[in-house]
Amino acid sequence: MERQPSKIGPELRGMLQEGKAEDIKAFLKDQHPYDIAEFIGSLEPHEIARIVLILGDPRGPDAFQKLDTDLQVEVLLEMPRREGARLMEDMDPDERVDLLKALPGEEAEKVIPLIAQAERNEIARLADYEEGTAGSVMTTEYVAVSGDLTVAEALSELRRIAPDRETIYNVFVLDDDRKLIGVITLKNLFILPSLAKVKDVMKSDAKSVSVGDDVEDVARVVRDYDLISVPAVDESDRLVGIVTVDDVVDVFEEEATEDIYRYGAAGEPLRYLPSSPLSLARQRVPWLILLAAVGFISGAIIHRYEAAITSVFALAVFIPVINASGGNAGTQASTVIIRSLATGEVSLSDSLRIFWKEIVVGLSMGVVVGLVGALRGYLMENSIRLAVTVGLAMVSVVLLATVMGAVLPLIFKKIKLDPAVVSGPFIASVLDVVALLIYLELARYMLNI
Amino acid sequence: MERQPSKIGPELRGMLQEGKAEDIKAFLKDQHPYDIAEFIGSLEPHEIARIVLILGDPRGPDAFQKLDTDLQVEVLLEMPRREGARLMEDMDPDERVDLLKALPGEEAEKVIPLIAQAERNEIARLADYEEGTAGSVMTTEYVAVSGDLTVAEALSELRRIAPDRETIYNVFVLDDDRKLIGVITLKNLFILPSLAKVKDVMKSDAKSVSVGDDVEDVARVVRDYDLISVPAVDESDRLVGIVTVDDVVDVFEEEATEDIYRYGAAGEPLRYLPSSPLSLARQRVPWLILLAAVGFISGAIIHRYEAAITSVFALAVFIPVINASGGNAGTQASTVIIRSLATGEVSLSDSLRIFWKEIVVGLSMGVVVGLVGALRGYLMENSIRLAVTVGLAMVSVVLLATVMGAVLPLIFKKIKLDPAVVSGPFIASVLDVVALLIYLELARYMLNI
Repeated sequence: MERQPSKIGPELRGMLQEGKAEDIKAFLKDQHPYDIAEFIGSLEPHEIARIVLILGDPRGPDAFQKLDTDLQVEVLLEMPRREGARLMEDMDPDERVDLLKALPGEEAEKVIPLIAQAERNEIARLADYEEGTAGSVMTTEYVAVSGDLTVAEALSELRRIAPDRETIYNVFVLDDDRKLIGVITLKNLFILPSLAKVKDVMKSDAKSVSVGDDVEDVARVVRDYDLISVPAVDESDRLVGIVTVDDVVDVFEEEATEDIYRYGAAGEPLRYLPSSPLSLARQRVPWLILLAAVGFISGAIIHRYEAAITSVFALAVFIPVINASGGNAGTQASTVIIRSLATGEVSLSDSLRIFWKEIVVGLSMGVVVGLVGALRGYLMENSIRLAVTVGLAMVSVVLLATVMGAVLPLIFKKIKLDPAVVSGPFIASVLDVVALLIYLELARYMLNI
Repeated sequence: MERQPSKIGPELRGMLQEGKAEDIKAFLKDQHPYDIAEFIGSLEPHEIARIVLILGDPRGPDAFQKLDTDLQVEVLLEMPRREGARLMEDMDPDERVDLLKALPGEEAEKVIPLIAQAERNEIARLADYEEGTAGSVMTTEYVAVSGDLTVAEALSELRRIAPDRETIYNVFVLDDDRKLIGVITLKNLFILPSLAKVKDVMKSDAKSVSVGDDVEDVARVVRDYDLISVPAVDESDRLVGIVTVDDVVDVFEEEATEDIYRYGAAGEPLRYLPSSPLSLARQRVPWLILLAAVGFISGAIIHRYEAAITSVFALAVFIPVINASGGNAGTQASTVIIRSLATGEVSLSDSLRIFWKEIVVGLSMGVVVGLVGALRGYLMENSIRLAVTVGLAMVSVVLLATVMGAVLPLIFKKIKLDPAVVSGPFIASVLDVVALLIYLELARYMLNI
């Protein structure tokens, strides 16, 4: 597991400059495409282009498609267009479509006609599926057989087509209309009697998804049923592709990343190291300004209560802790609910249970924190009234924050927005406003100011 | 994909009460273990126990091990001990060890002697591995052959042992000392000449991991190399188990959940629906109290500057926006860095680059937000001095927050703490203190108070 891509990159550059194509080939012959991509990823696009072409099929395209899509585009633009088209023909269908979608429009128009007809049809078919659907991540390199074959016939058919397929471990069984009627694992084909008909021994209620299904739901099916791949069918139940578990792993990671970024109000994820500081700042600054604007509202409230605060300055001293308690309790609750929604542990139908539960959670936490606050209030000014004000304010703010933190993500989900947009900073800022109003109004009443 | 577990549970309960064991068997015959677990998961433990026993091997244990471990324990305690031992014998080795570890000590002591010797040895072997290592999630149901076999011999050996194994698609090749010398996929065995020796056609530099490796690192290897399983070896390179991709999917999800909870300062994850409100509150309240304590420090600072604030009350009005800007900029930066560390996109060796980058990011965001703040300051009091104070405070607070938010997770990682502990609420609270000090000290200087 030792890899030092940082040292190998320059070494490859050296070989390239000395024109030692054969050395490069020999050196990378036994490397995994992922490692090759790591090695060459730090080189200049024109150097990467040359190495990919030197490697040839299948090593070149395999390594090439492990590069980030942005880099793939840069590398492709460095290649003679005809070579680029050949390279694209040899890519996996789903990766190829991703690359084409990322290419500048005019370049795509010029390269597509150079791609062989079969792959071009494939592209047309896959490019139709919307981003984020099963269709957009599926591959068409599955294996399928007719249910009328015997197990032995199916095995020899598989042996014939296996070399061209990404995975052959789930064998899909189709009827004459290419409708999916079942699935059988290679393992079972392997151990079942060779004269049995496939359709008699297959699993007929195979899990399948629709090409239009949300890729997160597809990922959940693969996770729950421990699948290596799941078939995707069109509206007439015809098999059009499969989503493999390695794509699902990527989906789970990307979704978690997106959620975490939204949740930290950090904008959409960018690749960190290659991005310029200004583009990183551009992702974050809109949220910062928006949340500053909410801060101005809190400021306006403090302004309105100027008389009360200047007459009992101790009130100002407790503003940070009351704001913090509200913001943090809200962040905690929304964290728990957003994540539970994302993993499928709770769903919208649990909303009422969540609501009641969080009331009890919020109240019990509020009482604990409120007692601490009241004690601090009493010790500071020796005033029971201040103590009660601070304590009551903390109880109600923590209760309200907890319930809001839990309910807002549910409402967002209900109206089909991403619950993760109810970010920690967002909840905290909004709760600052509410907490100040509750606290200062309560103070005016309790302290007669 | 339509499932309504909520309706099927009561139906099964009815059959159980009428003693229709055969109906239950027939009804669940073709269901996937995951679905069966969903159906029976809402029943009482003693009902689940009866259904699992009715189903028998392999359906019963397969469904049983899809239940949450806590529930497995409750169900097992409802079974006659001998039946429980039989059930455990039929579980997957890694699931079995997890269950045993969760059992109350005395119960484990009573049930272990009833388990067959072979499985007992297995347990002893697996139970030794520390939580969170490859050894703790691996299974021992892999397939391995000697490198001296021919392809045809290997295939017939596979055919013989396949029925008992979780996965047969990666075939591991061992020498006489059970040392791992290579791997070959079933797909390749399938298409290669049948008389070739396995050791001549296998992939000899197979990716492997150590049993003691962190399971997150193992998951990353599986993800990067698109593996279905990865072999785990002991210190003398002997194959002891494999980690399969379905476990890896779970690892990624659990790790993301843990990180998100830590990051929201929400304590350790609990299963939401089955947990009582008080146990949920108990997870969250320590953080709330800790962060409230930090809030008291902020309060003490405000107290110290009472004279300044009461003489220019506008200063108090800008406290929320300055705190919010610091807290949010810090949260954003730490979000980006924590997540990039978790996915492996950046590592500690990038620390210096990150530091410089975030200085530029923080400065440019600070200038934008600072201008907004200064404008608001000027409009409010018509005072250039207040405007400059607010603006400068915001620039320095945002800059400092951004750099701290990025650097703290790196420091935590460096001293081998989880970077995700640098939670949003934590960063925000600490920055409140720092921001207040900067702002109020600056104000005292700028406004001569």
